[in-house]
Amino acid sequence: MTHHSALSGADVLCDTLLDHGIDTCFANPGTSEMHFVAALDRKPAMRCVLGLFEGVVTGAADGYARMADKPAATLLHLGPGLANGLANLHNARRAGSPVVNIVGDHARHHLPYDAPLTSDIETLARPMSAWVRTIPDPSHIQSDTATAVAVARGKPGRIATLILPADVAWSDSAGGGHAAAPLDTPGLPSPETMRKVVERLRNGRRTVLMLGGGALRAAPLATASRVAQGCGARLLAPQSNGRMERGAGRVAVNRVPFSVDSALRSLADAEQLILVGARPPVAFFAYPGKPGSLLPAGCEVVELAAEGEDPVATLDWLADELGSSAAPLPLLEAPGAGPLPSGGLTPASLITALGRLMPEHAVLCDESVSSGRDLFEQTRGAAPHDYLQITGGAIGSGLPMATGAAIACPDRRIVCLQADGSGMYTLQALWTQARERLDVVTIILSNRRYAILHAELKNVGAGAAGENARRMLDLDDPALDWVAMARGMGVEGVAVHTVESFAGALRSALARSGPFLIEARLQT
Amino acid sequence: MTHHSALSGADVLCDTLLDHGIDTCFANPGTSEMHFVAALDRKPAMRCVLGLFEGVVTGAADGYARMADKPAATLLHLGPGLANGLANLHNARRAGSPVVNIVGDHARHHLPYDAPLTSDIETLARPMSAWVRTIPDPSHIQSDTATAVAVARGKPGRIATLILPADVAWSDSAGGGHAAAPLDTPGLPSPETMRKVVERLRNGRRTVLMLGGGALRAAPLATASRVAQGCGARLLAPQSNGRMERGAGRVAVNRVPFSVDSALRSLADAEQLILVGARPPVAFFAYPGKPGSLLPAGCEVVELAAEGEDPVATLDWLADELGSSAAPLPLLEAPGAGPLPSGGLTPASLITALGRLMPEHAVLCDESVSSGRDLFEQTRGAAPHDYLQITGGAIGSGLPMATGAAIACPDRRIVCLQADGSGMYTLQALWTQARERLDVVTIILSNRRYAILHAELKNVGAGAAGENARRMLDLDDPALDWVAMARGMGVEGVAVHTVESFAGALRSALARSGPFLIEARLQT
Repeated sequence: MTHHSALSGADVLCDTLLDHGIDTCFANPGTSEMHFVAALDRKPAMRCVLGLFEGVVTGAADGYARMADKPAATLLHLGPGLANGLANLHNARRAGSPVVNIVGDHARHHLPYDAPLTSDIETLARPMSAWVRTIPDPSHIQSDTATAVAVARGKPGRIATLILPADVAWSDSAGGGHAAAPLDTPGLPSPETMRKVVERLRNGRRTVLMLGGGALRAAPLATASRVAQGCGARLLAPQSNGRMERGAGRVAVNRVPFSVDSALRSLADAEQLILVGARPPVAFFAYPGKPGSLLPAGCEVVELAAEGEDPVATLDWLADELGSSAAPLPLLEAPGAGPLPSGGLTPASLITALGRLMPEHAVLCDESVSSGRDLFEQTRGAAPHDYLQITGGAIGSGLPMATGAAIACPDRRIVCLQADGSGMYTLQALWTQARERLDVVTIILSNRRYAILHAELKNVGAGAAGENARRMLDLDDPALDWVAMARGMGVEGVAVHTVESFAGALRSALARSGPFLIEARLQT
Repeated sequence: MTHHSALSGADVLCDTLLDHGIDTCFANPGTSEMHFVAALDRKPAMRCVLGLFEGVVTGAADGYARMADKPAATLLHLGPGLANGLANLHNARRAGSPVVNIVGDHARHHLPYDAPLTSDIETLARPMSAWVRTIPDPSHIQSDTATAVAVARGKPGRIATLILPADVAWSDSAGGGHAAAPLDTPGLPSPETMRKVVERLRNGRRTVLMLGGGALRAAPLATASRVAQGCGARLLAPQSNGRMERGAGRVAVNRVPFSVDSALRSLADAEQLILVGARPPVAFFAYPGKPGSLLPAGCEVVELAAEGEDPVATLDWLADELGSSAAPLPLLEAPGAGPLPSGGLTPASLITALGRLMPEHAVLCDESVSSGRDLFEQTRGAAPHDYLQITGGAIGSGLPMATGAAIACPDRRIVCLQADGSGMYTLQALWTQARERLDVVTIILSNRRYAILHAELKNVGAGAAGENARRMLDLDDPALDWVAMARGMGVEGVAVHTVESFAGALRSALARSGPFLIEARLQT
């Protein structure tokens, strides 16, 4: 007789996650996940963070991964629970964030009944996942879980979705079983590609070195800066990035502008584009009569450090190969030197003040949308910070992202710059911030409208808003009171109308522990 | 030369919706839908209702369809916007609610660039839709839109998802083009099936007549009651139903209980089951050692009025065929006769009070989950009302459903009984209620936990909650303040702790116009 341990399938799954370094689980479980929840009770090493809506759960997993450089698990309830989390998985996918989703399903023998909560989970998962698998039986739990983690941890990070039938979770399992499929570790681009790039970097043509993903941390940016200075290229970053290390003392890099016309101008002189962990720049939306590619005609593109290749190692190799000498970094002025603006709060004055007041090593989460157009420029010389953006355009990213970043970095200050319309998508994140006592300062940019859409209505050539359009673009009737909503979820806050009161509120929020919300009522 | 009108593709789509009787559009648009928004500006006949999150948009369309007996359109922004609305589309699908989704996509020529917001919309739509189509070019707008409406209006109602590329929306269109595909109109079951059922109803065996969908309105229920009384059958309804007309003076029908053991007992004596617009009863979830089908062994099932057949006409035919004479309806006692309970607010005392105080022809939207287990029984003799439930188990249905029902029925009182945990999923619906000045009274059942999951943890055999489990099932740290959250979205409210204060608040809420929220703090 063989010995059977008392472990359930859910225990094996949890243990495998822990064995592979995943010790944080953002969750909103339901009945089909109760055995997983029971297993978590037996694993004090796993930190469980509840979100009151799955968009919070997946958005927090995205923010966590960007700062922890490893995946968290999510725990989601069947197809609808996954569906609620898809928008922020879309953002995570575009950010290259690793995430391991555990989605409960009905017991396998229950599926043919098509019970009310039944849906096609694999199909729902596929568009936002690099890898989807339903664990077919208890003997595959360990191997499938290990494979999910390995897929997620590729370069760039990926979304792996593991579907756990309830009866597999509640099965007795002796552990063991099938071995995980081995995965390639990320390496350098092919020697051929590397030779081609070295040749290009020496040919004297006007060159843009566009950096994305892991190349946007402080050390590879410094390496890239040496390479660029050595061969007369300039650095550029995509419009949206998962994480960028920047601020005073670090290499500054511009981004491709959001507006098509500005983006075209910024790239007009490029004769060749070397991509390191980035993709060719394209317009965010199509507009009648405007191009989709942002590159000038004839610009040659070479892609380095794409899927499965390591952008940091690639840059190191390039610097060595080109003999790029250590050039002085473009050190920027220390922040806070200039005076604060004063008077009525506008997007510009708020952002200037924020740049001056931001603390050292803050994590700045940005879903400021239209009000934040100057944010990037105005925080260029701010205290060194990490800059995290909405990456996939699926709004409702900011508050959950800040929540997850705070879980990953308990010793850092998180500042979330959040547009009001987008913030309403996942406002439930504030409750998780209160429950977990997270040091997050949320700044709501309250202009009481989908301001970007008023502009876009004109951009697409549809003209100014009439009655029906205004009813779909304006949020002023009734006005949202963010301080009241935050209080309802256990987060203190204050509304401010002037730069002086904003600066006072921000200083005091940064000096306390736990979450705080500042509703910045903007003059529009 | 042919004459070209100045209509855009988006105008043609709107006109086609209006031509087919769709005059309400629940929306949360983005850049790719701006031409559609501009077209709506030219169509004052189309009522546009903004939801601050897509779960509100689709849930409102579900509630609207249940009460208006016709579809509304939704307007959703690309894949993530659709994804946010999928959970309530899942509920709508299970309710048999007709919905026509208009989902904007990038311009066709922009898709190959894989811009940040690009995703596979058709794949996302399929699990929750009966029909999905991307309009291939402007000449198909009219026919595809007409087909979408026809599909949605089938019996039962269906989810039709029409994907509108931005360049098709902004194209010049002369209208016309392809004809819509003709669709079958719903009819009676086959003569063979009907003969079989008549034979069964006369064979003297113990028979359950299970009614679903359109058979749960007052008139077909009366017909079914005559049929059942004539042949000794009893009536039963599924556990979850899109809409049921009930209350004093109407035929009362029991539902299959939620708990597996109770459900098995309620059906234990059935020798045959005749389904009229309903599906065979199954367990909501699987539990170790319990069956999935709720029918006793050997029970014969005959399915009438399935897909494409009309349950109301079917019941009329049966009554005629069986010569069912007009039997007196089981008239129920008038409500409000008994005294109100008093003292501390419990689920039972709240529900008794609600049953007594509910006004005539109210629409009762029920997402009360665990606290509402007695609601159905306790409102059996209440004033005549429509009863709308969460149908697919995807929580976050109640507040949006009530919002849509109120848009459909401006002359009726909407009462929404909403569990607190589920309510947090789509709380943004309160803002739409305030903006549209809807007569909705929301009663939040505040027990500050996912109470159902504490029970389910035991039901699945996983035991009582420990530390990690409690952190995922309890909502008391911090406590949610619903009155503050509602005020933040422009809805007045009050918190109550006793039956007396609840009754006072409910009476006053029902006497005023516009939305109101009562946070019922339950003794647990």
